[in-house]
Amino acid sequence: MPASVQQGAGQLPISQSFSVAVTGSQDASLNSEVQRFVTQLSRLTGIPFRPKSGPAPTLQIHADHGREAVQKLGEDESYELTITDSGAKLTAPTTLGVLRGLQTFLQLVQITPAGFSVPAVTIKDQPRFPWRGMLIDVSRHFIPIDALKRNLDGMAAVKMNVLHWHLSDDQGFRAESKAFPKLTGMGSDSMFYTQDEIRNFIAYAHDRGIRVMPEFDIPGHSRSWFLGYPELSSGSGPYTLEGGGPGPYIDPIIDPTQESTYKFLEKFIAEMAKLFPDTYFHIGGDEVDGKQWDANPKIQAFIHAHGMKNNQDLQAYFNQRLEKIVAKNHKTMVGWDEILHPDLPKTIVVQSWRGQQSLAAAAKQGYRGLLSFGYYLDLMWPAARHYAVDPMADAAASLTPEEKALILGGESCQWAEWVTPENIDSHIWPRNAVIAERLWSPQNVTDVASMYTRMNAVSLDLEALGLTHRSGRMHMLHRMAGPADITALRVLADVVEPVKDYNRWSDAKGPIDFHAPLTRMIDAVSPESDTARRFGDLVQTFVQSGYKDQAAEAQIRMWLTIWRDNDARLHPLLEQTFLLQEDVPLSQDLSALGMAGLQALDYLDKGQAAPDSWKTPQLALIAQAQKPMADMLLMVVAPVQQLVEASAGQAQHN
Amino acid sequence: MPASVQQGAGQLPISQSFSVAVTGSQDASLNSEVQRFVTQLSRLTGIPFRPKSGPAPTLQIHADHGREAVQKLGEDESYELTITDSGAKLTAPTTLGVLRGLQTFLQLVQITPAGFSVPAVTIKDQPRFPWRGMLIDVSRHFIPIDALKRNLDGMAAVKMNVLHWHLSDDQGFRAESKAFPKLTGMGSDSMFYTQDEIRNFIAYAHDRGIRVMPEFDIPGHSRSWFLGYPELSSGSGPYTLEGGGPGPYIDPIIDPTQESTYKFLEKFIAEMAKLFPDTYFHIGGDEVDGKQWDANPKIQAFIHAHGMKNNQDLQAYFNQRLEKIVAKNHKTMVGWDEILHPDLPKTIVVQSWRGQQSLAAAAKQGYRGLLSFGYYLDLMWPAARHYAVDPMADAAASLTPEEKALILGGESCQWAEWVTPENIDSHIWPRNAVIAERLWSPQNVTDVASMYTRMNAVSLDLEALGLTHRSGRMHMLHRMAGPADITALRVLADVVEPVKDYNRWSDAKGPIDFHAPLTRMIDAVSPESDTARRFGDLVQTFVQSGYKDQAAEAQIRMWLTIWRDNDARLHPLLEQTFLLQEDVPLSQDLSALGMAGLQALDYLDKGQAAPDSWKTPQLALIAQAQKPMADMLLMVVAPVQQLVEASAGQAQHN
Repeated sequence: MPASVQQGAGQLPISQSFSVAVTGSQDASLNSEVQRFVTQLSRLTGIPFRPKSGPAPTLQIHADHGREAVQKLGEDESYELTITDSGAKLTAPTTLGVLRGLQTFLQLVQITPAGFSVPAVTIKDQPRFPWRGMLIDVSRHFIPIDALKRNLDGMAAVKMNVLHWHLSDDQGFRAESKAFPKLTGMGSDSMFYTQDEIRNFIAYAHDRGIRVMPEFDIPGHSRSWFLGYPELSSGSGPYTLEGGGPGPYIDPIIDPTQESTYKFLEKFIAEMAKLFPDTYFHIGGDEVDGKQWDANPKIQAFIHAHGMKNNQDLQAYFNQRLEKIVAKNHKTMVGWDEILHPDLPKTIVVQSWRGQQSLAAAAKQGYRGLLSFGYYLDLMWPAARHYAVDPMADAAASLTPEEKALILGGESCQWAEWVTPENIDSHIWPRNAVIAERLWSPQNVTDVASMYTRMNAVSLDLEALGLTHRSGRMHMLHRMAGPADITALRVLADVVEPVKDYNRWSDAKGPIDFHAPLTRMIDAVSPESDTARRFGDLVQTFVQSGYKDQAAEAQIRMWLTIWRDNDARLHPLLEQTFLLQEDVPLSQDLSALGMAGLQALDYLDKGQAAPDSWKTPQLALIAQAQKPMADMLLMVVAPVQQLVEASAGQAQHN
Repeated sequence: MPASVQQGAGQLPISQSFSVAVTGSQDASLNSEVQRFVTQLSRLTGIPFRPKSGPAPTLQIHADHGREAVQKLGEDESYELTITDSGAKLTAPTTLGVLRGLQTFLQLVQITPAGFSVPAVTIKDQPRFPWRGMLIDVSRHFIPIDALKRNLDGMAAVKMNVLHWHLSDDQGFRAESKAFPKLTGMGSDSMFYTQDEIRNFIAYAHDRGIRVMPEFDIPGHSRSWFLGYPELSSGSGPYTLEGGGPGPYIDPIIDPTQESTYKFLEKFIAEMAKLFPDTYFHIGGDEVDGKQWDANPKIQAFIHAHGMKNNQDLQAYFNQRLEKIVAKNHKTMVGWDEILHPDLPKTIVVQSWRGQQSLAAAAKQGYRGLLSFGYYLDLMWPAARHYAVDPMADAAASLTPEEKALILGGESCQWAEWVTPENIDSHIWPRNAVIAERLWSPQNVTDVASMYTRMNAVSLDLEALGLTHRSGRMHMLHRMAGPADITALRVLADVVEPVKDYNRWSDAKGPIDFHAPLTRMIDAVSPESDTARRFGDLVQTFVQSGYKDQAAEAQIRMWLTIWRDNDARLHPLLEQTFLLQEDVPLSQDLSALGMAGLQALDYLDKGQAAPDSWKTPQLALIAQAQKPMADMLLMVVAPVQQLVEASAGQAQHN
């Protein structure tokens, strides 16, 4: 949603004669963006536009200035887009603003009874926050460049401007170092990006107005470094990758007390600082498990000798020395919450994963900050929950204007315990679009119904752009079903969601095998069920109408009937394939819920309170169906419960 | 279906420990094929295989000899594949045979209650015909290399071994010539393949065991040559591309009477003969419209002077001179039916588009031949109809063994009047797989039910391989519907097919605009409706049971109910978008058919003959619904008619 939108009269048709003309400042990324814009407009409309020129272009583009060669934080992204029934004009102070405006134009494309068009409108737009990022973890599961590239396309479509590339962790080191080839040579299972690929990827991101900030997480989360360079660690090797060999898994960390560590980091960071042109350099710094420090007498002696109180002080010492190395390479250090320490210079940026409280605390001490708490896509929250998280809310709301100005924005986080190239898109999209809107649009843009309507439209456009969040699911369902028809399987898959937060972690017995297939139904389904949300809304409408809304009831009955009848159709298939056997109870419960809901409606229609003898077993069924099964939740339990309770005269009208 | 299959006992599990070992002859294309095999096995099973070696590989591959650097017609493609519950062995005389055997292995992968596996089996296999091709026309609509490459992947999966690349026609010249740059410079609308792209594409095909035969269609179908080189034509220019400017469209053809034509062709063919390493070179030769020859006194005088009787004789003269040029470049000339003429040497190959009769006639005269009649994918026939066409049937059945040996095989043809990169896959797949089987498998493999079961499985595998025949349809339906839910739209789209044969051509008023969007429902739907076919089978089962099969009746009722209720859900959407308005009557008819079918079942259930007063309007409705609407056919009319007539006591039990 743009900062300012003024509706005009009429619409501008998009036809075969559509043409674009560019005046003012031009550069390579603008030209390639215009080409991509025409390609995507062609995909959306199916019109094969052909290069043409003429005196009256449909869309006139003008930028006053070019872009920075290395995109800067806070670089002007504003634009103005004016569309009338006879033409469109996109102007911006910089070509970067043009990139943003073209994405808005694409979002406006609509199909009407008369053809494709964009509505007449005047938009003046600029981002609320200068830092609107997404973290992608490529360590726990390696994600190939082509999958990352299509996600950059998606980020550009929703105007995000930072890819935070989490390149190393316990499970793998993913960026080639020429100075220290054993980092990937021994620490990556041969799955890493070469420096050429990285350079090419950064250029691809730059073309789309996206900065690429690397993260090398130290001193914790660093097991993968130690396969090739065990001398960096605080304990004794040999090491294997987490998930790459037998446990038990202690948490090895870098030894910050030896000078050789800093010599290594000097050389490594100098190399990476050249490879990654962005000004910001993320050193991780989170979740430092001090066990190896505690167990190492030399390190304990060091702590004593330097008058430190604890491991936190030692990490602060490490971070100070690290910051100097980063700064010497003309970079600004970024790290997670835990790096916040009064001994560190105010230039650093703190990324908050632990809560808005710590973001505000950093700002009060004069540190710049980024919010990621509330934006963890891997926790399988519904879009509305992410949408409700605002960097300026809660603790941050009471900051002074100067302190507020230190909050640069935020980043969604795609941690990769449970993703592969096949399902990563569905874990990110379309939910990431609402975080992008939170960070771009004015703070008062919060209407949830409008958000879902627009998210749905964006989701389709993203699939047309090449993302696979919808098609990937179909492929995975077909795999589970073999050659069988998947209609009934989709009915079930459409109303379940993965368990939330870290419940899948806790359900996993023992350490996660990062080489295991992720091919269960939980891996295929959407983090948020559209069908269940819409069904919940229908039940809400029906209840609020005092059970009188017949159109709503008809639709509720239709769904309940489909579910009631589904297990009979689906059960034989579930038994036939090992990937679906665990879903047998889920399917049975769905059918039972359909039956219960239909009976509840019958009571409501008769205006007769359902008897306890009926209600009690229904509520027992509902209690059963609420429990996670096969690491999934049936998302239609609550609305069916609402119907059952209403039919027994216990409805809570809200 | 392999030539010989012997079922064994048990199955070989496909698990994370799966490994491949290669002994014997090796080459680059084998190594890349093994890699692709593992990648596709990983896509099918979702298992992330990692490179490993060990003493007991799951699949042992051995080839006695390598392949020809340029794949030869008739090169040995045989292989033997033995699978037991403890391992698999694939052996072949050549690495080319290994390619074929690996595809068979992939087809055997199945999901079971215990996991993924391949069944224990002994297969001895070789192709029935040495030439199993597909023609893709890239002139009428340009198809980019990436779309062609995924179709090569599909061809390899079904063991086809020739891509016949129809590179020039009236609508565009698509292959770069350095000697004659105006061929693409003026005759391609800037849509053509560079020589580098062509070389890369040929290498890609070679890796997959596919020959690439170019076709440059002359002397007819050659308007695109004349934009840059009007002096080649038999009339006077200037020329524009067909569909690229205002008509009227006469049919310009090359002037075969001037020596400069042959000088041009000498140089052009020498260049193309180097660019395309395949031994066969297709010169088209079809549908020569003699109007320009008739109208040119100089050409008529030439015919007279050389004692020719007519334009056919002139074309034969042209072909003889052409054949000499082709032969001088060490190539064998291939052409369509019309090139057959006793003056041409027996080395040429005749491709029959007009019928099996002409194929047999050629063989009787000692010419080698290819069948394409009956394999035109653009005619929108059902798979079963293509499957029933056999190169050795009809006129060919009475040939002597020696004459039969002259029939090399056949080619499916994908002419491109109505395709774009977006829907070409759905026009080719999965139907092309059954033509591939016709040309590979023994002549007695003809069971249609088995074919459809296996085609469905192959179709899913092909989509996993990257083809878009299923996902592309979804994208197109979403475009038509805007952000609206497409459930009801799919119900309609699932039971219609495009009109057959050349009826879309004849319905198009005036010349086709080859730059127009192809975004109507006809462009999105499958050439063959699975749903309609299955519904027809259900009705058949029900009728044959004497209306007693209750399971069949329940399913028939389910479908009829969905259709009856669909128009009410779909109609508002159809009115909202210009791409769907033309489908309003189609949707209404489908609902009316659903209603009629349900009423017919009610009469049948009551064992009571439906009265004429009911039957007459139903038959009128059926007559109406049989007519094409929006260039589509409702494919469930016939089975509903069967029910209606049965209910009136007029059932024709077959």
